[in-house]
Amino acid sequence: MLGNGSATPTLSRNPAGQVLRYGSDLLLLDCGEGTLLQLLRYKVATRHLSHVLISHLHGDHIFGLPGLLTSWSLTGRTAPLHLYGPPGLADILTTLFRHSATHLHFPLHFQPIHPDREQLLTEVNGLQVTALPLQHRVPCSGFLLTETRPERHLLPPALNLPYPIRQALKQGRELPGQAQPLGPEAYTRTDSPRAYAYCTDTLYLPTLAERLRGVTLLYHEATFAEADAHRAGPTFHSTARQAAVLARAAGVNRLLLGHFSARYSDLSLLENEARSLFAPTDAARQGQWYQVG
Amino acid sequence: MLGNGSATPTLSRNPAGQVLRYGSDLLLLDCGEGTLLQLLRYKVATRHLSHVLISHLHGDHIFGLPGLLTSWSLTGRTAPLHLYGPPGLADILTTLFRHSATHLHFPLHFQPIHPDREQLLTEVNGLQVTALPLQHRVPCSGFLLTETRPERHLLPPALNLPYPIRQALKQGRELPGQAQPLGPEAYTRTDSPRAYAYCTDTLYLPTLAERLRGVTLLYHEATFAEADAHRAGPTFHSTARQAAVLARAAGVNRLLLGHFSARYSDLSLLENEARSLFAPTDAARQGQWYQVG
Repeated sequence: MLGNGSATPTLSRNPAGQVLRYGSDLLLLDCGEGTLLQLLRYKVATRHLSHVLISHLHGDHIFGLPGLLTSWSLTGRTAPLHLYGPPGLADILTTLFRHSATHLHFPLHFQPIHPDREQLLTEVNGLQVTALPLQHRVPCSGFLLTETRPERHLLPPALNLPYPIRQALKQGRELPGQAQPLGPEAYTRTDSPRAYAYCTDTLYLPTLAERLRGVTLLYHEATFAEADAHRAGPTFHSTARQAAVLARAAGVNRLLLGHFSARYSDLSLLENEARSLFAPTDAARQGQWYQVG
Repeated sequence: MLGNGSATPTLSRNPAGQVLRYGSDLLLLDCGEGTLLQLLRYKVATRHLSHVLISHLHGDHIFGLPGLLTSWSLTGRTAPLHLYGPPGLADILTTLFRHSATHLHFPLHFQPIHPDREQLLTEVNGLQVTALPLQHRVPCSGFLLTETRPERHLLPPALNLPYPIRQALKQGRELPGQAQPLGPEAYTRTDSPRAYAYCTDTLYLPTLAERLRGVTLLYHEATFAEADAHRAGPTFHSTARQAAVLARAAGVNRLLLGHFSARYSDLSLLENEARSLFAPTDAARQGQWYQVG
């Protein structure tokens, strides 16, 4: 968690930004101002950061992106980067780079996100990335990241088999046995696929529950407390209570709140409000890694 | 001093940004990423910040500007802001604000700086602001800020005069006396006008010395040490030694070095290199105010 704040950054709350690690892959979700320093501060080695997903074009989600890209270029990055975001993002970066005579030294592949419909963006080594339309003042997408090849764990009968056979079983391959074939089904169990959903910024969208069913960890914005619900509607944001209602309706395993307004100095207010409806809730803390499942 | 770093920010060195205070006026010189947080960190009350001067359009001098402007707007600023910078800056801000549907709640007056010739930009309550062409990879201007009404100090014969008369004399007015008029020349002395010069980013420009003659405090970039002079030319930057040569040739009172490459962890290397040629030199430290004269 690089930033749990919203539009007005404070000394203790950076704007939006988080890193999802899956195997040896790193994906960056949103990139508010100061994201580069947050990555340095929390010692995230970004050599394997291959994908950046941008939810929408408000400054607190993108003002750190130009600096991140130019800095990577200056420090010798050559690995390609895949960037997903609203169509206007290309115009923004092109304009900035044209006026600063900037030429990135690595390939930047940009794929625009359609603002109005669900869209499969890519698959990154067993992780499927889907964009979900949210409802905000400008076109905005949530992201659903789902395992396509969940991990197999060896069952007790397999534990004494030779190492190469155990590895093959874990990869789901069937091997010829002495009496009968060694099938991965008999020797392994498969976790149900884990899924992480990233939903910010958005009005409370009850219809989202169906699409988020079975999600392991839901990150949902909670810019306001319910007492300030009158502010949430006009600004197209949600309250902590609304995030909890959605998490409960969707039956997700756990809920992580973020995108907090600078008006709340104590996050336990928002955390407790959500927990009273949906117990497995945490308020996102910067610098912390959260396990998905 | 908000940032003494260069293109690659580090945890201890922010990119370019500094505040000049003159009377009750505040001017911001350049605005690299994170400038807003630096202003918060060093408790600079920005209510009276009325002018922003941008030297050039490289990211380490402007990537903090969009966030600063939107944040001021969100937190209720209504006072007009005067922005000076290369013509392309208007295109950059317009593009960003169009895609994020941002409408600033305060008037932003932009005046483009001509890249090729000296230009009087404005006068801010007794402080004249002039842009000086520098030589960098993209069009770049230095800024010369000169007092137009230097302060008068009362001489001993004036100290026993009534308060309103003393005030009038300090303002340079002549008053009818009993025997002879009370002239400000006889009762006050005038400081020589102070001047601050801000020169970053640039190749070493010997011709600048003539224009900087008599400057009280010269801030000059020293991206590299002389041992790395071979890097300075191709990147259109200067060494600490070159900054000192210029300061000595111009006969300025004091020299402040900045815009340090991330490769130097110990600034005393650059400071000592310059001091050996020009003793009254300091390496700029973040969070510190420097007195001009």
